[in-house]
Amino acid sequence: MDFKKALKDKQQLINKRLEELLSYVDAPQIIIEAMKYSLFAGGKRIRPILCIAVCEALEGNLEDVLDIACSIEMIHTYSLIHDDLPAMDNDDYRRGKLTNHKVYGDAIAILAGDGLLNYAFETLLKVIKRKNDKRFVDAAFEIAKASGITGMIGGQVIDITNVGNIIDENLLVSMHERKTGKLIEASCNVGAIIANRYEYLEITREYSKNLGVAFQIVDDILDVIGDEKKLGKSVGKDAKNNKPTYVTLYGLEKSRELAKEFSLKAVELANKIDNTGFLKDLTKYLLNRES
Amino acid sequence: MDFKKALKDKQQLINKRLEELLSYVDAPQIIIEAMKYSLFAGGKRIRPILCIAVCEALEGNLEDVLDIACSIEMIHTYSLIHDDLPAMDNDDYRRGKLTNHKVYGDAIAILAGDGLLNYAFETLLKVIKRKNDKRFVDAAFEIAKASGITGMIGGQVIDITNVGNIIDENLLVSMHERKTGKLIEASCNVGAIIANRYEYLEITREYSKNLGVAFQIVDDILDVIGDEKKLGKSVGKDAKNNKPTYVTLYGLEKSRELAKEFSLKAVELANKIDNTGFLKDLTKYLLNRES
Repeated sequence: MDFKKALKDKQQLINKRLEELLSYVDAPQIIIEAMKYSLFAGGKRIRPILCIAVCEALEGNLEDVLDIACSIEMIHTYSLIHDDLPAMDNDDYRRGKLTNHKVYGDAIAILAGDGLLNYAFETLLKVIKRKNDKRFVDAAFEIAKASGITGMIGGQVIDITNVGNIIDENLLVSMHERKTGKLIEASCNVGAIIANRYEYLEITREYSKNLGVAFQIVDDILDVIGDEKKLGKSVGKDAKNNKPTYVTLYGLEKSRELAKEFSLKAVELANKIDNTGFLKDLTKYLLNRES
Repeated sequence: MDFKKALKDKQQLINKRLEELLSYVDAPQIIIEAMKYSLFAGGKRIRPILCIAVCEALEGNLEDVLDIACSIEMIHTYSLIHDDLPAMDNDDYRRGKLTNHKVYGDAIAILAGDGLLNYAFETLLKVIKRKNDKRFVDAAFEIAKASGITGMIGGQVIDITNVGNIIDENLLVSMHERKTGKLIEASCNVGAIIANRYEYLEITREYSKNLGVAFQIVDDILDVIGDEKKLGKSVGKDAKNNKPTYVTLYGLEKSRELAKEFSLKAVELANKIDNTGFLKDLTKYLLNRES
């Protein structure tokens, strides 16, 4: 199948299921609305797609993994809402749309983030209840570790406490590894776990690490040379906010070389997981993006 | 055993275990410090004590329930940190100490809250992994529902979106039922679930509902007539913030009568759960408090 078509199909599948998961919840209308606003603000669904792609490549069941993949997207979305708050990165736009707090105010934005994080775990626990199988517990625990203080939240702490600082390579790598790398890694690992192919965890870990680093370097490069219209956000933000990036550490040329190096490695590993070519195409798509 | 002594023993047990659970976590020091600051800011540990008390009264195992009880306290603490933020209730003091954001700034306070919520679920999932028993999944799911958008977060949404509004009895009751009632109820239900006495869930629900309502009315009364030194926070805050309360709705006398009515019912139900008298004494203690 054509890659772009397959990608779009997966995005639609995730959107439809997210819509269902957020329906029929007995909660104040405004909080559901605020959660949905960010959940359906045009995200590329990279994490749930990686999760589903790995699971399917290893002959796992789509129905088994779909709600878990959606939970990962909820967690990713909550982290964006909180990161955008005035107290954090103070961003007015994301993906070309007003950020959550610009529409609903800071209080509802904080609660919408809390709500999405909590609802992700509620969804995971509902799956565990329904399935009664160790794999689902392992998957949920993998996600909890990745999104917590040792993972994503810890990375955000390193980020906001080092604004304006000159940091060394180790801290920069550690920050990104935690802030974006861990949840990407968990997405891939969960795919293998739900497919009951634990023997692939070493490869999914290695794959997602290379993908994560390459992805971050591309992100940093796009913040310098990207097209604002395509990105849907202002460029030059890292420099303006005195944020340490791969580009400030290595310069543009060396960053490009590094991105290429990690990308090649990621593509090589993608082929070891998935012989249909989808994961390879997805990897290339993510690393050659302009937005 | 003397009630006060038994209560103190349980508080110490919870504090010790919380301390252990927060040790040896590979996370940036500042986030652990901020989480611990609020976790050890003098909370009475009402929810975990209720959880343990119900479990023990129904002959459940303390070791089985302790980490779950601690997770509930983490969730309660995160909700206080976020509620105190300038974007929400904007409180400088809680229990006589500076609030989290006054010490660590808004960004770290938001992340400390996120961190505690995530770590609560990480802890619950670790228990589920270790125990491999349906009871622990049921307990975690009960907590997730209670703390989420249909429960605690939903209650906070009703609260902040009705500042300055005159609301009717139904909405006031629904707000408190969600904001504080649901997590108190979950604490008691989880005690029965871990003791594997599901047949007690009807009574624990009924007990905690009466306890929750009485507790909230006492809270509202104390905000009007309480002693600032004993409370560790300023009184008259609800009125200043235009918050609807039982006292604004019913007046002081009627509120006192209502508190007494719900308290008596709660004590009666406590005796059905626990024949040692501890839960009864705890109920009386919570409803006759001055802080």
